Amino acid sequence: MDFAMERKRIVIVGGVAAGASAAARARRRSEAAEIVLIERGPDVSFANCGLPYFIGGEIKQREALAVQTPQTLKAMLALDVRTSTEAMAIDRAGKRVHIRSLASGTEAWLAYDRLILAPGAVPVRPPLPGIDDPRIFTLRSLADMDRIKAAAASARRIAVIGAGFIGLEMAEQFVHLGKQVALIEMLNQILPPLDRPMTMLMEDELKRRGVELIVNDGIESFAAENTLTCRLKSGRTVSADLVVLSIGVRPDTALAKAAGLELGPRGHIRVNGFMQTSDPEIYAAGDAVEVKDLLTGEPTAVPLGGPANRQGRLAADHIFHPEQTQPYTGALGTAIVRAFDIAAGLTGWSEKRLQAAKRAYRTVTVNDNHHAGYYPGAKPMLLKLLWEPATGRVLGAQATGFLGVDKRLDVLATAIAGGMTIDDLAQLELSYAPPFGSAKDIVNLAAFTAINARDGLVTPVDAIPDDPSIQVVDTRPAPLAQAHPLTQVRAINIPLAALRQRLGELDRNRPVVTVCAFGKTAYFAARILAQNGFNVSTLTGGIRAHFDPRTPAKLPTP
Amino acid sequence: MDFAMERKRIVIVGGVAAGASAAARARRRSEAAEIVLIERGPDVSFANCGLPYFIGGEIKQREALAVQTPQTLKAMLALDVRTSTEAMAIDRAGKRVHIRSLASGTEAWLAYDRLILAPGAVPVRPPLPGIDDPRIFTLRSLADMDRIKAAAASARRIAVIGAGFIGLEMAEQFVHLGKQVALIEMLNQILPPLDRPMTMLMEDELKRRGVELIVNDGIESFAAENTLTCRLKSGRTVSADLVVLSIGVRPDTALAKAAGLELGPRGHIRVNGFMQTSDPEIYAAGDAVEVKDLLTGEPTAVPLGGPANRQGRLAADHIFHPEQTQPYTGALGTAIVRAFDIAAGLTGWSEKRLQAAKRAYRTVTVNDNHHAGYYPGAKPMLLKLLWEPATGRVLGAQATGFLGVDKRLDVLATAIAGGMTIDDLAQLELSYAPPFGSAKDIVNLAAFTAINARDGLVTPVDAIPDDPSIQVVDTRPAPLAQAHPLTQVRAINIPLAALRQRLGELDRNRPVVTVCAFGKTAYFAARILAQNGFNVSTLTGGIRAHFDPRTPAKLPTP
Repeated sequence: MDFAMERKRIVIVGGVAAGASAAARARRRSEAAEIVLIERGPDVSFANCGLPYFIGGEIKQREALAVQTPQTLKAMLALDVRTSTEAMAIDRAGKRVHIRSLASGTEAWLAYDRLILAPGAVPVRPPLPGIDDPRIFTLRSLADMDRIKAAAASARRIAVIGAGFIGLEMAEQFVHLGKQVALIEMLNQILPPLDRPMTMLMEDELKRRGVELIVNDGIESFAAENTLTCRLKSGRTVSADLVVLSIGVRPDTALAKAAGLELGPRGHIRVNGFMQTSDPEIYAAGDAVEVKDLLTGEPTAVPLGGPANRQGRLAADHIFHPEQTQPYTGALGTAIVRAFDIAAGLTGWSEKRLQAAKRAYRTVTVNDNHHAGYYPGAKPMLLKLLWEPATGRVLGAQATGFLGVDKRLDVLATAIAGGMTIDDLAQLELSYAPPFGSAKDIVNLAAFTAINARDGLVTPVDAIPDDPSIQVVDTRPAPLAQAHPLTQVRAINIPLAALRQRLGELDRNRPVVTVCAFGKTAYFAARILAQNGFNVSTLTGGIRAHFDPRTPAKLPTP
Repeated sequence: MDFAMERKRIVIVGGVAAGASAAARARRRSEAAEIVLIERGPDVSFANCGLPYFIGGEIKQREALAVQTPQTLKAMLALDVRTSTEAMAIDRAGKRVHIRSLASGTEAWLAYDRLILAPGAVPVRPPLPGIDDPRIFTLRSLADMDRIKAAAASARRIAVIGAGFIGLEMAEQFVHLGKQVALIEMLNQILPPLDRPMTMLMEDELKRRGVELIVNDGIESFAAENTLTCRLKSGRTVSADLVVLSIGVRPDTALAKAAGLELGPRGHIRVNGFMQTSDPEIYAAGDAVEVKDLLTGEPTAVPLGGPANRQGRLAADHIFHPEQTQPYTGALGTAIVRAFDIAAGLTGWSEKRLQAAKRAYRTVTVNDNHHAGYYPGAKPMLLKLLWEPATGRVLGAQATGFLGVDKRLDVLATAIAGGMTIDDLAQLELSYAPPFGSAKDIVNLAAFTAINARDGLVTPVDAIPDDPSIQVVDTRPAPLAQAHPLTQVRAINIPLAALRQRLGELDRNRPVVTVCAFGKTAYFAARILAQNGFNVSTLTGGIRAHFDPRTPAKLPTP
């Protein structure tokens, strides 16, 4: 008999993204099944990505965050929802879960035909001196959110520790609330998954908005005084009325581990492409699992809402209709964050990750407007593309700018998933009308530039070598070069329009690096120089990508 | 010797999108080449997609539309630019072009090593009675733009004939100028390339903004009176002070035809994948050429700026470095337009085109918010997906909504170019943070729905059959169904939450069609009904896609 037609019991541990998705999908697959959703907290299926925005007041209605409630899940999906209930242990041989009501203390064994584990991840809270101060918070649940919101109401100064996605969202929201915000990051940049140049615009934005940004400095201890003092590794201290720790998450997999399920090196639950754990009658999905990297097939963990939802859905599909279920193709790690007017994000592999893995790659960085430059409101954007030299296959991309960043990341995430190459990207026919794009979109432009690099039309460099024999040529128009001089390196200004006439000013026996605001005229100049026998390379992404994220491409028209 | 190193002469006829791109790329490929750009009009490389926005005053500076001028092209690219110069004839055997200065009347033969034809397309101006009235305009050049802008200044009532992309942009801009606008379309819908349901939201928007929309009625003649009278085929008359004809374009290929180059059935220049015409030393690019359809490889013509620019670039690459040049992969016809707050567009094949070509396809239509619904400012969007039944390969997509339409079209254009399937789309990992997207993006949702249809979980129908035996079940909550009743068909309201208890009200021996605002709860209901033995199908895209493009999904919270 069809599994979906029998009264099988599916027990799901964890009722937020992956768990709730699994439950909903299971019900669509089987009206006959008994579906029990166990959740340790009081809430199910809430919008955890929205928590910072309720704290900051952008989301006004707390109810908006409750995508579903136990009542709606019961009414719509006929689920047996048990909140404030903890799964204590799994008896795999007996196919049952030991559960305990946190309210009453009642314990019971609950039999299952299939078990889905969706325990999620918990914020890291390192055992530092002073960590137990009640003014130090992490953000995972609606209850955490309420506590932070209440504490923020009377706080004047707030320290956010960790400048990843959540840390940036919290810093932004606290500024919206009028707080003095210090954002502290151990690494030398915000947004650790991105390469450093791609974070400069957002760092600049944070400073403009009054955030005290402290990078290259980690938290060492907390001291409780009148305010709370955060002591950093450098010796610096930051005092705060409230601290939010956002330094990462770890998978909440004690239950899985105790049950003897196979775990990865960092404690994630190992699953196959159908989300089955080492016990094929136990599935796992969401932030707690180890999945395949889409590009390399290697194990990875991507604790994000999108993958969690799809994994939960997939587990339910496989339980009821394995023959119809396509395996999980792997995670790309597509992510984006907004801080004030700036967005930044990535998909696939970053340069630093490729370097660490000793994988062959090439990269270019390009600037362009998010839509046609002649149409009002065009905003600049920076896009970095990484590809595999042997095949041209796209390995990763990063983007930052004011508008349209998400669109380019999504196009590139799709291209990576499709195994597409830089040649494919060059030919992409994207939607163009002046309010939406350009005849040559920045994605096309990045691909053109990559192809130029591959075919030897341009030699991109991502830094000007510290070599006095190099002639740095600034190809910007003279008034622009004078108004916004390149102070970091010694350069000679030869505007592109004059270059053919002024070749004699350069020494053909010494290498040349061409530089401009965005990298475009510098490329044009490099073509002229190369064809005139010069050994020339071009700073990829221009001054904007390396020295000044807001340097203009031209002077304002008077 | 390398072709790029010799003083070869490249003559380019046509100096706007494809021609200017070819010239610029040719110069990057060869400093040695002599590059002559022949342009009949006074301007080169102008932003022709921006013309409506200058007429409407959104673009304030006319200079903004001049992407390049003959002077900048000379300074930056060392081009020999000859504006107001017509190419009269091609002597293929002698490899020379006969040119004539429109100013002086001087004629000359200009020898070429390679010739690139980029003549573009001209607006269709049918030989109707009264068509020569000076108040009837078409829009192609900056001069046309200036004339329309001048005429509009004193016009009170304007008729735009043809509700395609340009017609919609013009109608919108004339409303911005405070004009009374009639928009007249021969077919039964605006935006002829799209399927009818995907145009309803924009039609509604046009009416809300005061545009007099006349569909199913073509222009028959014009009568010059005090105002100009447009007589339509129906007998209806529309009086106007100014008429803009935007009923399509035809390739401007008299020169190519006279030279004996092979043309397609509608007069487009035939080219191979490297943009070579039937004479391999003559290339052609842009609106005048016939290219391959990306999906079928059949000949097609896509007169749009994006393809034109890339084709011009490709022709120049092939002239100088054929070994490095990837052939043109074909056109998708990705296009988008904005009218007031609404955007609509498509990529790939539409349903009507698939039907006309008798190709097998399946389709679903889904509604969702453009970003997380719980985050302020979420706007609804309608997305239609078409795929090939045998393979699951995506054949086309259409989208309409307020925000984020371009993003979804671009993702789907990329997916089509990558040969991706509905299963691939379901797994796409797109960028998600509340201001930008959803954990399950509408693209994922469309793919889920398509997979559900393929796997038999849902049977989508795109109309409620006119069959009295059918039971139409409206699954919306009762207060919503009462506030926004489904008047077009007789339906019984059984809210989803009550369905399991109210199955007895339905006759198991008669087919059921489930309906709701967006199509989501109707799908959930269909799953319940199907598993209870009902023969059930679901209206794809819901009431919003078929009856009322703005019907709400829920009542406002009091």
